[in-house]
Amino acid sequence: MSVESPALAPEYKSSAGTGATKNHVVVDVVLRVMLFATALVAIIVMVTSKQTKLIPVAPGMALPIAAKFNQTPAFIYYVVALSVACFYSIITGLLSVLALVKPTGGPTKMMFHFAILDALLLGIMASATGAAGGVGYIGYKGNNHTGWNKICNIYGTFCAHIAGSLTVSLLPSIALLLLVWVSVFALSKKIARS
Amino acid sequence: MSVESPALAPEYKSSAGTGATKNHVVVDVVLRVMLFATALVAIIVMVTSKQTKLIPVAPGMALPIAAKFNQTPAFIYYVVALSVACFYSIITGLLSVLALVKPTGGPTKMMFHFAILDALLLGIMASATGAAGGVGYIGYKGNNHTGWNKICNIYGTFCAHIAGSLTVSLLPSIALLLLVWVSVFALSKKIARS
Repeated sequence: MSVESPALAPEYKSSAGTGATKNHVVVDVVLRVMLFATALVAIIVMVTSKQTKLIPVAPGMALPIAAKFNQTPAFIYYVVALSVACFYSIITGLLSVLALVKPTGGPTKMMFHFAILDALLLGIMASATGAAGGVGYIGYKGNNHTGWNKICNIYGTFCAHIAGSLTVSLLPSIALLLLVWVSVFALSKKIARS
Repeated sequence: MSVESPALAPEYKSSAGTGATKNHVVVDVVLRVMLFATALVAIIVMVTSKQTKLIPVAPGMALPIAAKFNQTPAFIYYVVALSVACFYSIITGLLSVLALVKPTGGPTKMMFHFAILDALLLGIMASATGAAGGVGYIGYKGNNHTGWNKICNIYGTFCAHIAGSLTVSLLPSIALLLLVWVSVFALSKKIARS
């Protein structure tokens, strides 16, 4: 419609999408709070997993040997990825709250940037959870073929922490997936309404 | 603008978004072809990784022992995820080509569904690559703390296949991330134009 005056177009657009945008931002904030909380719990449970046990190294001789998360590169990557997700959720959560309180300055643009970054972080978080899960599974079950013995029969508390952290860490990934979905949904809704 | 007649609004929308949608669908098809090709290569390299070697089990006695990808659960998950990605890329690729040839029936709706599924598959693919990568790293470097010996010094060809497959398998994840980005970008573009 080239006959429509250019000055009227922005007004038409913003009046159509406001209700949907506000709902979207509320859901967005809730998901970011969930992302922050679950990532923080997963980090704390993981970094407090240290367990020291007396391991027999020779007949009649045992040495205290500690199992720590930072002895495994996959767990270090996992904690780093969770920390990034935690930090990211604080910044974007605050920006979302700001957009909710003072809804000016292009919510569509913010939605776009958030969706891009959320998808990237989803990839990072999922790969970190996968890496930690893959290694954790070897610790839990061992692998006869490669001669890797399970260690969970010895370091029970350590393993319980790893397992707990991994279970909780599914939630940040799910939250990020939902955030991408909500953004895509909100963007589609805007097109349908405009 | 409530003064605009409802009958004109859809026409205005569709005429504005056609060029952008067509470009988007072309990029979409190219990325899906890339997803298919790289996932297929990664699967083939992984499943052909079997290597049999004579391993000394006692002084003067050696047994032929095979290393196969399906001895490790993380690698099985990895191959399954890649297969799903491969299969998914065929179906969605065909639908995209169809949308390109016969651009009727809501490209926005298709874009929305694709973005939702792409994001889900991105999470699955990234976690599978992470799991296989975490386990592959132990095979390559070993872990002194847990007493897991590296096996790449023995099964060289097997490890070369795993490493090659893992390197290639970064591309399907990147393709899926780009697909999500392209969808989000195309949806935002449509709002900006409408």
